[in-house]
Amino acid sequence: MTKPVNGFSKLNKEEKINWLAKNYLNNNDAAISVLKQYWNEDQELQKLHDEFIENTVSNFYLPLGLAPNFLINGKYHVLPMAIEESSVVAAASKAAKFWGERGGFKATVLNTKKIGQVHFLFQGDPSKLDVFVTNIKPKLKEAVKPITRNMEKRGGGILDISLINKTDKLENYYQLFVNFDTRDSMGANFINSCLEKFAEVLQEEANKNEDFTKEEKDLKVIMSILSNYVPECTVKAEVSCPVDKLSEDPNMSGKEFAEKFIQAVRIAEIEPYRAVTHNKGVMNGIDAVVLATGNDFRAVEAGVHAYASRNGDYTSLTHAKIEDGIFKFWMEIPLALGTVGGLTSLHPLVKLALDILQRPTANELMEITAVAGLAQNFAALRSLITTGIQQGHMKMHLMNILNQNKATEIEKEEMVEYFTHHTITHSSVIEQLEKMRS
Amino acid sequence: MTKPVNGFSKLNKEEKINWLAKNYLNNNDAAISVLKQYWNEDQELQKLHDEFIENTVSNFYLPLGLAPNFLINGKYHVLPMAIEESSVVAAASKAAKFWGERGGFKATVLNTKKIGQVHFLFQGDPSKLDVFVTNIKPKLKEAVKPITRNMEKRGGGILDISLINKTDKLENYYQLFVNFDTRDSMGANFINSCLEKFAEVLQEEANKNEDFTKEEKDLKVIMSILSNYVPECTVKAEVSCPVDKLSEDPNMSGKEFAEKFIQAVRIAEIEPYRAVTHNKGVMNGIDAVVLATGNDFRAVEAGVHAYASRNGDYTSLTHAKIEDGIFKFWMEIPLALGTVGGLTSLHPLVKLALDILQRPTANELMEITAVAGLAQNFAALRSLITTGIQQGHMKMHLMNILNQNKATEIEKEEMVEYFTHHTITHSSVIEQLEKMRS
Repeated sequence: MTKPVNGFSKLNKEEKINWLAKNYLNNNDAAISVLKQYWNEDQELQKLHDEFIENTVSNFYLPLGLAPNFLINGKYHVLPMAIEESSVVAAASKAAKFWGERGGFKATVLNTKKIGQVHFLFQGDPSKLDVFVTNIKPKLKEAVKPITRNMEKRGGGILDISLINKTDKLENYYQLFVNFDTRDSMGANFINSCLEKFAEVLQEEANKNEDFTKEEKDLKVIMSILSNYVPECTVKAEVSCPVDKLSEDPNMSGKEFAEKFIQAVRIAEIEPYRAVTHNKGVMNGIDAVVLATGNDFRAVEAGVHAYASRNGDYTSLTHAKIEDGIFKFWMEIPLALGTVGGLTSLHPLVKLALDILQRPTANELMEITAVAGLAQNFAALRSLITTGIQQGHMKMHLMNILNQNKATEIEKEEMVEYFTHHTITHSSVIEQLEKMRS
Repeated sequence: MTKPVNGFSKLNKEEKINWLAKNYLNNNDAAISVLKQYWNEDQELQKLHDEFIENTVSNFYLPLGLAPNFLINGKYHVLPMAIEESSVVAAASKAAKFWGERGGFKATVLNTKKIGQVHFLFQGDPSKLDVFVTNIKPKLKEAVKPITRNMEKRGGGILDISLINKTDKLENYYQLFVNFDTRDSMGANFINSCLEKFAEVLQEEANKNEDFTKEEKDLKVIMSILSNYVPECTVKAEVSCPVDKLSEDPNMSGKEFAEKFIQAVRIAEIEPYRAVTHNKGVMNGIDAVVLATGNDFRAVEAGVHAYASRNGDYTSLTHAKIEDGIFKFWMEIPLALGTVGGLTSLHPLVKLALDILQRPTANELMEITAVAGLAQNFAALRSLITTGIQQGHMKMHLMNILNQNKATEIEKEEMVEYFTHHTITHSSVIEQLEKMRS
């Protein structure tokens, strides 16, 4: 394929697929039917999904699993989790059961401020800019009334607008730094619409302002956009129990378990190479719930990892200690989630996921999601410091290789039995399967 | 629901759904049918997807879209992108077209080292430990032969093993720090299997080592696991063109565009609140390709964001400058991806996505994926510094609200026309729709 295509987005789905098959798949009918076998029989439903994004040709399946037995703030939940990685849902379920028998998870929203910025250049007297911004605040707020009206009815809106001088970092660079309360919506559209209006008014008013010199009037907006860094939209999730209730392994005392566990967390606190993978495990739990509830995992990921690096070194999100014979394990993370707006009422499985979670408020969803992350990290660390993670992983790996090679149920049983006592590698499994079949 | 459930994982899918319906959905038949309407008619195919994870009850649809016209290293590609967010695929396609007409994207893999660590505690003489580790290296390598044999045939394997002393950060804490070459596989299973074997040998050999004191013999492994932080598995993606070829807007010269664009990038370089969202945009492109090709986006996200914070401040992944009249825009990021193993040969749509990409090696996929990220960032910045992002977003938002309210095609046309001249908010759309219908 050496030529660009024109007007691709104007083709209908069938035409797009034909173009793809012709130019990239040697007109292979089997390839076309792979795409089509994932279409939903219900054409109206399929159309709905097609319109979520552009140039849609099929539905990419992520398995939707259930992790039951999450006792959170005294109430049992079953967590809908959309994720392609094996072991995650099983690990979440096990951690849930474990902590359910030890008082459950506690989760608390600490604050819920969302942030947006108008980034602009101003060449002139900073104190005059300061006066100017203070003076136009009523006009800024007035200008966004059509946008904020409904949000205010729901108890949210603009919290405050400040001018930030960043000229020490970049010549002439200032921000309007705006805090928002977006209630149960994630708020991206709301915030961006407000900011773009602010930017308009800011430039207009600067231009009209008679106290400004010619250069000052020429205030120049670079861009206006929300921030996915939300260190004041945070939630805490925690578990605790007496140290001697911690171990389920007869070969390891609760104290030994607690100490090894705390060492593993300490390592993630001081060693970035480990912290990244440690936090990746936290995000396995978080993203699975974020996806199932129609939220934006890229936004959450970016905000959480930046938070993990906020003190200059990339470090663990979770922490653990023993205090007066009590083992405590906890995490504080930023999470900007919504339970209204966006996909939440459009994607039927997202709607259902929120029903399964008993229609949570955004704050409740923050709590549930943070717990999923903490549970995942607990399960991962528990495996790592006891059996190692490969035991469980490799069992899943074995099943995947067997499925890939279309093993029968009987073959699967025999292979599982065999590999209870032998090392699983891709080649050893293939070898053994061939031996069995020959 | 106030009681935990036992043996949930042992229930079959139908039973799991019945339990869910009874305990969390008031036995609502409509809810059950939402789950079932997403099952594939082909039972064998459905079974395959059910087995990817645990407790699977349905398929979560992510739209799979195509972004054509990606000219990368002289070859045209169409990118399969799995993502729920509107505008991402359209933006990628536009950026591809734009740069395709200006020489295309260049991408280069800089290095491909993967990393794993055995984390352990050793109480004793560091110089004796040093000698010990050097001495047992042949035994370590010998012990993993059954695991590395096949990887070595493919040209990969263990690159080096070093002892790292971290006792300045944490008492008695050391690492075996191991570099791997995993060729076209992401390598997580391979690396973890090697590390767990190393850990075993390390403890056994320490225990047997006659030069060690009793304390020294009691070397204690805390955990063994790969790192998702891969600053030596990186790829560079770049574009460039003469400044005067940059603008497609008659009201903005190429020079003005370039300068404003570079300002926007500079802001993301010095301001973490902006950098997080800037990089989130990069990841919109990257994750969509990562998902479609069956890779693990949590691993990629964690590694990339940690990399963005590696110098102590969280900063922009992309950079831009003008040099001798040429505008240059580029990014270097860590990306550990695989094109064999994992889901790549199991998930039919992942297989197809790799076919669409002409069966790339892992290195080629790193290049393509990095380009998707750079393109996405370019498109986002271009919108931000010209029209603002809300114009496009709000049009999609409008369509979503209309779909949600089951607007007819005629209603949609009229509404789109109306909102070309009016501000789109959720309430204004509903109001206008009601007006039209009354």
